[in-house]
Amino acid sequence: MASGNKVRVGVVGASGYTGAELLRLVAGHPGLDLTLATSREFAGRAVSEVYPNLRIDLAFAELDAGALEDLDLVFLALPHGASMEPGARLVKAGVPVIDLSADFRFEDPVTYANWFGREHAAPELLPDWTYGLPELHRDEIAGAKAVANPGCYPTAALLALAPLVKADLIDPSGIVISAASGVSGAGRGLSAGVHFSHVDANFGAYGYPRHKHTPEVEQELSRLAGKAVTVTFVPHLVPMPRGLLATCVAPFHGGDAAGAARAMYDGEPFVHVQDFPPQTKYVAGSNHCLLSYEIDERTGRVIAVAAIDNLGKGAAGQAVQNANLMLGLDERAGLAAAGIYP
Amino acid sequence: MASGNKVRVGVVGASGYTGAELLRLVAGHPGLDLTLATSREFAGRAVSEVYPNLRIDLAFAELDAGALEDLDLVFLALPHGASMEPGARLVKAGVPVIDLSADFRFEDPVTYANWFGREHAAPELLPDWTYGLPELHRDEIAGAKAVANPGCYPTAALLALAPLVKADLIDPSGIVISAASGVSGAGRGLSAGVHFSHVDANFGAYGYPRHKHTPEVEQELSRLAGKAVTVTFVPHLVPMPRGLLATCVAPFHGGDAAGAARAMYDGEPFVHVQDFPPQTKYVAGSNHCLLSYEIDERTGRVIAVAAIDNLGKGAAGQAVQNANLMLGLDERAGLAAAGIYP
Amino acid sequence: MASGNKVRVGVVGASGYTGAELLRLVAGHPGLDLTLATSREFAGRAVSEVYPNLRIDLAFAELDAGALEDLDLVFLALPHGASMEPGARLVKAGVPVIDLSADFRFEDPVTYANWFGREHAAPELLPDWTYGLPELHRDEIAGAKAVANPGCYPTAALLALAPLVKADLIDPSGIVISAASGVSGAGRGLSAGVHFSHVDANFGAYGYPRHKHTPEVEQELSRLAGKAVTVTFVPHLVPMPRGLLATCVAPFHGGDAAGAARAMYDGEPFVHVQDFPPQTKYVAGSNHCLLSYEIDERTGRVIAVAAIDNLGKGAAGQAVQNANLMLGLDERAGLAAAGIYP
Amino acid sequence: MASGNKVRVGVVGASGYTGAELLRLVAGHPGLDLTLATSREFAGRAVSEVYPNLRIDLAFAELDAGALEDLDLVFLALPHGASMEPGARLVKAGVPVIDLSADFRFEDPVTYANWFGREHAAPELLPDWTYGLPELHRDEIAGAKAVANPGCYPTAALLALAPLVKADLIDPSGIVISAASGVSGAGRGLSAGVHFSHVDANFGAYGYPRHKHTPEVEQELSRLAGKAVTVTFVPHLVPMPRGLLATCVAPFHGGDAAGAARAMYDGEPFVHVQDFPPQTKYVAGSNHCLLSYEIDERTGRVIAVAAIDNLGKGAAGQAVQNANLMLGLDERAGLAAAGIYP
Repeated sequence: MASGNKVRVGVVGASGYTGAELLRLVAGHPGLDLTLATSREFAGRAVSEVYPNLRIDLAFAELDAGALEDLDLVFLALPHGASMEPGARLVKAGVPVIDLSADFRFEDPVTYANWFGREHAAPELLPDWTYGLPELHRDEIAGAKAVANPGCYPTAALLALAPLVKADLIDPSGIVISAASGVSGAGRGLSAGVHFSHVDANFGAYGYPRHKHTPEVEQELSRLAGKAVTVTFVPHLVPMPRGLLATCVAPFHGGDAAGAARAMYDGEPFVHVQDFPPQTKYVAGSNHCLLSYEIDERTGRVIAVAAIDNLGKGAAGQAVQNANLMLGLDERAGLAAAGIYP
Repeated sequence: MASGNKVRVGVVGASGYTGAELLRLVAGHPGLDLTLATSREFAGRAVSEVYPNLRIDLAFAELDAGALEDLDLVFLALPHGASMEPGARLVKAGVPVIDLSADFRFEDPVTYANWFGREHAAPELLPDWTYGLPELHRDEIAGAKAVANPGCYPTAALLALAPLVKADLIDPSGIVISAASGVSGAGRGLSAGVHFSHVDANFGAYGYPRHKHTPEVEQELSRLAGKAVTVTFVPHLVPMPRGLLATCVAPFHGGDAAGAARAMYDGEPFVHVQDFPPQTKYVAGSNHCLLSYEIDERTGRVIAVAAIDNLGKGAAGQAVQNANLMLGLDERAGLAAAGIYP
Repeated sequence: MASGNKVRVGVVGASGYTGAELLRLVAGHPGLDLTLATSREFAGRAVSEVYPNLRIDLAFAELDAGALEDLDLVFLALPHGASMEPGARLVKAGVPVIDLSADFRFEDPVTYANWFGREHAAPELLPDWTYGLPELHRDEIAGAKAVANPGCYPTAALLALAPLVKADLIDPSGIVISAASGVSGAGRGLSAGVHFSHVDANFGAYGYPRHKHTPEVEQELSRLAGKAVTVTFVPHLVPMPRGLLATCVAPFHGGDAAGAARAMYDGEPFVHVQDFPPQTKYVAGSNHCLLSYEIDERTGRVIAVAAIDNLGKGAAGQAVQNANLMLGLDERAGLAAAGIYP
Repeated sequence: MASGNKVRVGVVGASGYTGAELLRLVAGHPGLDLTLATSREFAGRAVSEVYPNLRIDLAFAELDAGALEDLDLVFLALPHGASMEPGARLVKAGVPVIDLSADFRFEDPVTYANWFGREHAAPELLPDWTYGLPELHRDEIAGAKAVANPGCYPTAALLALAPLVKADLIDPSGIVISAASGVSGAGRGLSAGVHFSHVDANFGAYGYPRHKHTPEVEQELSRLAGKAVTVTFVPHLVPMPRGLLATCVAPFHGGDAAGAARAMYDGEPFVHVQDFPPQTKYVAGSNHCLLSYEIDERTGRVIAVAAIDNLGKGAAGQAVQNANLMLGLDERAGLAAAGIYP
């Protein structure tokens, strides 16, 4: 698949936070060759001038759809809706593609229409896409040419809840998810809501009760439960650049919640079940997910908590993990970094 | 009650964060005269040397139990357990007292024993104490000589949930509270968990499923519901010095949640129902509480959110509000300050 | 001057950070009546909807130049350059005005032209304006109808250095000022440089060697020194919403630096000389300035440090202090608040 | 030197922030084998339990001086003073050692005594130690068995100033350094000064005018200048976990400051001269140093600014760089990571 030794990779939308994290990971990956980085805003400017942390000898380019087809693998890090066209084109051209938007995450185009307020532009291609959560769909991903990278909140919530639903330890109709994300989750775009003076020392819920990440959680939990599952999902914004915590509460049937998770994630390189509550800082800059489980005996509920880096396992890290699977590389390649603490 | 024009007030435990906030509020209060501030750690040192923000001409003193009895009103800002003795003594001496610990918050000493792991030292005095949430117990507080100031989390959760329970709009057996506090809620004491390098850019849950604020919420909701209520309560730590948000989810019977809250809090000087989600920063340094209500139609749940300053309405501000009621002053005296934003 | 009991006050540009801080201070001021708050962006919207911390029953209005002339005093909180026209108009109409921009701070229009890159629009009116640093110009301010409120950096640097220059304890030709400000100093406008994800956990110098606050410092130090003084001034941005520290280093002739400062500021309500280094947090939300002086014996230099709140003594607080002086009120009126700590 | 393929490495004092950063770097280094990690506080506990970010299969051990002699290289990450004994012992045993404390940084024991308030315990061994700033002493380091790793502030200040002193572009007698560090620079120990609630949204100077990093800067600048140099050094604390900025001002003789730096650092893997001011966030988690130079023509001074990660190039990263030189490995081995942004 690769030309020469390394896989020639392009990142489309490379100057957003997710795109820049992909540049960082691809540039440090032993098997990938960063060939193209597109940015409408910064086309023509050196990457290291825009992101002085990235000591990469490359300039941002304009997006040229044809040029993408010469690559061995493309990451699309575009806003929701903007991946439709290049995603469809790459699928048709047979170029392996990982899309980090929500455009190809739903098997049912009606779900997309209901939650995103418009018809899906390429419903006939949805069967070609695989939902890229390796811990649930590793084999499909390994055989796929098009992977829809999960959202950050769904990644955390699903990793926390999947073992419980799979082992039938909870009543999925009673799931309440309270989650919180660092500010990079809102993207690099400017708005009053991301001004430092507003966000610092501030905490609030937002986007509920119909946050666009909800249907992903429901789609995957429904698959696992074998029946339709709906969840209450309330996201919050935390004054920190990175990190995401999902606190999931559900009626508990009894049994060994942590044990079920340990069994399901045994051997997983990036998912770790702890005996104590996870904190986001320990996974900053990494692809790891930390989990813990507690039973509230008095109320008969389980409290499952997951911590990830929203830009790591919640976006760019998971995308590289998916790329590794698609390319037959070591799943951990380029993802060895430990979280940066403190 | 006062000697001369002003009420002579003492703050016991005045060098902790709650105590220092009481000093700030009492010093700026038109009807209170800050006469005594005790601190074991800083006895003998000028207040403005320890807290250069407080331009107060007073030195911290050792606690002398007898000296307290000469005061017109005493705030106890001591750690849990340490208020038992001085609280009991002041009640017997007939000195108006507001205790900011959990020592006198429970009507049933068994609740105290169950949650705090030891027998209550003065169970016979518990009937003398009133739970100091003015929006629920204004009249009792106005007639009380001993007030147990609520915890920060219970204040926010109760203000959010009380209208719904009172109007029978929710099923109280299904309440799930996910709350988050700034770090001053953990006090001024040192531990690895409050080191800046650990807390900054970090978010996690802690203290669940048996956080010591849980029984307060249950006691008051049970009173309102007329039956025993248990709740799942999961607190989190936010990298900010002040502020507290309670996100409360419950099965909704239907009706007008925000309307019920507006009706209940009509005319309240410190509680405001908004049409948009509250954020903690807007109440920093103030005694205000912001509320909002959203219905998740798909799952049949209501999401009630409350924002307070954990040191304001969640501690020292509410204590001054209680003092105003006990002393027959304007309930808003000394509490006019708006939140500091940004 | 006032109609009825209170002085009718208008704030022009009231939705910026400085404007909103003026609203907060004026609304809490016993002698001022907040009559008008203009905002181009939010005209027609309730203040408490845009700033939920401000429980003020007022809506933002469009700027109507004629309406300003009915007021007893006007604060102009507009961007640099935008105060020229309304400032000139109010002077001519004889309405007391305090301008918080740089438009009227310089006695010499050539200074303005040199540093701001354009000719001053009303050089003939500059003699009508007084530089509003009360600790240097109290008497002129008390007699003035037009006051140019100082910049935040100059306020801190001048309060630190004035006693040393006045007492001839330093060589003013060797002054190096390294200062640092919270992010609200950059205003409420959006830019990549104020995005939370960029600013948080970040520190850097900016705007040197020709920051627009430099000539203010030089103008006032030159007045005090009786000869032309130039300084090297390097500002930095700190990941905090408020607060400003000026660290001033200069060749020291010997003598008692702290003593000279204590002598000069004896009786000042807002300036305090400490024996230990000031920190910005202790003045957050207040009009206070904390100072300290250390001698580096080995190099023969003095290190003078000043801490203020850039929105308080560095902007809105100082403007209210100037208003009090102009109106013959108690200089401390409306400014009693202690800093919010922690 | 290595047993088998990899160099067997020990980290003494591995549970402090610098020690933990060494664990992170050594564990990810292709040529080093993390064999021993000592910690008095956590002996016996798994590393990944204390630092969940480090997915390392190792437990902290008690320090056993004899066991150190079996290693191929030892990093000492102990408090100032505590390295004296093990440092001397390892030198005598001929085991390559890198000490991250100040204990062996001074060629003259009198300097140590003057600044640290006690006699040096092993002055006769000082000639065996090399000051480990590779950009100044690469050849000596490559041939050394004992390297004293520089302090964080000196690393930044020296990298900024060395080209100017070397090329005789400045008057070294007029150097004023204003620097600022993230909180991890103060270590993992607890004190009121590192409590989150105190540090957050706070900025202040500390430790001047005799901070213990001053003599390092002076020793190295004196070497370069060929005459005794003293500097004024004022450190500040920034509310961020990592990062360090040195803002250095000096009388400028004229010439090309940035050009001199580019010439001196041409080919350096970790030092980069920019045309715009460096910010600490771009080097977080990395071993890079960003530099810029501006001339203040009006005052005849140069402003040289350096940004590093205090735990990276300012401590553990530089120690690994030194280890690479001592072991004859690629100087960049294990240090390829880009800064984590945002």
